[in-house]
Amino acid sequence: MNEVLAIIGLGVIGGSLALALKEQKIFKQIVGIDKNKSNLNKALELGAVDKFGEYADLSGADVIILAIPVGGFFDVFQQLKKVKLKKTVVISDVGSTKKSVVADFFKVFDQDLPQFVPAHPIAGREKSGVENAVKQLFFNKKVIITPLEHNDQNSLSLIRQLWERVGALVVELPLDIHDEILAATSHLPHVLAFLLVDLLGQDLNHQAIFSFTAGGFRDFTRIASSDFVMWRDICLQNQQPILQLLNQYRNKINQFEYLLQKGDKDAIGELFLRAKKARDNHFDDN
Amino acid sequence: MNEVLAIIGLGVIGGSLALALKEQKIFKQIVGIDKNKSNLNKALELGAVDKFGEYADLSGADVIILAIPVGGFFDVFQQLKKVKLKKTVVISDVGSTKKSVVADFFKVFDQDLPQFVPAHPIAGREKSGVENAVKQLFFNKKVIITPLEHNDQNSLSLIRQLWERVGALVVELPLDIHDEILAATSHLPHVLAFLLVDLLGQDLNHQAIFSFTAGGFRDFTRIASSDFVMWRDICLQNQQPILQLLNQYRNKINQFEYLLQKGDKDAIGELFLRAKKARDNHFDDN
Repeated sequence: MNEVLAIIGLGVIGGSLALALKEQKIFKQIVGIDKNKSNLNKALELGAVDKFGEYADLSGADVIILAIPVGGFFDVFQQLKKVKLKKTVVISDVGSTKKSVVADFFKVFDQDLPQFVPAHPIAGREKSGVENAVKQLFFNKKVIITPLEHNDQNSLSLIRQLWERVGALVVELPLDIHDEILAATSHLPHVLAFLLVDLLGQDLNHQAIFSFTAGGFRDFTRIASSDFVMWRDICLQNQQPILQLLNQYRNKINQFEYLLQKGDKDAIGELFLRAKKARDNHFDDN
Repeated sequence: MNEVLAIIGLGVIGGSLALALKEQKIFKQIVGIDKNKSNLNKALELGAVDKFGEYADLSGADVIILAIPVGGFFDVFQQLKKVKLKKTVVISDVGSTKKSVVADFFKVFDQDLPQFVPAHPIAGREKSGVENAVKQLFFNKKVIITPLEHNDQNSLSLIRQLWERVGALVVELPLDIHDEILAATSHLPHVLAFLLVDLLGQDLNHQAIFSFTAGGFRDFTRIASSDFVMWRDICLQNQQPILQLLNQYRNKINQFEYLLQKGDKDAIGELFLRAKKARDNHFDDN
């Protein structure tokens, strides 16, 4: 299909994608770029990449995928601009925010736009690092592509097929819808989990408190063990949708507080039942 | 050890305890009491109980365990008061709040106090009902006993041994400490999960929103699939500690909102890292 894929950032997502694409033999060569040399060595050991690369080597790449925290996109785009990339190169990414990475792209590439097809696999692990990469990570998972106006059909198809080959279900969404949905399903829950663990962790009795937790608490807070740089960047890059949801969530807390102060048994029961039904309608894993 | 155990309430906790005690052959007979006849039939089919009982039958019980939602304790204590219980009977429970059930006990039994040893296994499942009972549910799980002043050593030992025989780790705590810790580790997280799912479920686009969730969201909201009556009752019976924590949690949201509005990268990163470290110090399952 294509000759050379370069993956910039070999964390759990970049590493998993590399492993999965290796198995599918879609590219003749997968080149890894990462500031962290120990990541690169691990990726090579795991067979995720064929060789290390530098930005200068990207002049030979057919496809370049950014798999770094979204706060780093502007810098990487600037690096890419310095390289004489192939005219046919397709750039894509796996970032959890889309408006911000597209804005960074247009800040750097103002004319002679390369093909950049923004994408976001809805899959991940709380464990980070290439050592936790798993090639089945994207199987049966959704990947959202947010096409840009200048994207040609070939580039869109290439990125779509790449994800379909590793088992993902590709859907297209507008940029702002992507960011609003993900703020609700992923960014807000992560913030809420970080805040809860921080609240309890700062209690003087946190040792005792954590020792009396059960599976429910472990599941509820698992996402608070996620990579803090990745989530810091996501919050900063998707600020407005997250702020809006935080405000709505605080209103829910205020409403519940009022019901609990009144001891309104019926209304609290209704609220919990409505939430339970909403969840049970969508998931059968409880 | 003893002759007759009665379990009032055959949900997932009462049913699991019955199954585990049956296997340990600690009692000659386990009698089940439940308003819901289909629960009783299932419990009998599963071999969790030997027979159905009525309150009148409790005159022959050596141990009586309340395994119903905490909002029902007052009524059950009133039923028990009408029965001529054995002088040596030991009553215990599995309720998630302890001050409230003890208050209910003393409202009903003002003199000639029977032995009531409040207990709370820190174990559970989001799936409810005796059909989801599992005999290993309490293995390696903590059980908190909150002894009362009038408890004699025999009764305390009996309840402690009963839980130890099914694999639990028994610890003793004062009533109010129990309620404060559980408000933090269990009650608050459940409320937060119910509120998040309700917020998203009431969005006009909730079908789309839920379809773009991944494992993190599923884990984070799993506890929102819990039994709504049980959790409604817990909130009402542990009102003050929960209200206090909700207030503290809202303050955390306010502080985070301020940092995000300012775009304070360093402070947000510090907060997330501190939370991640606190969680990783206590759990290795992420």
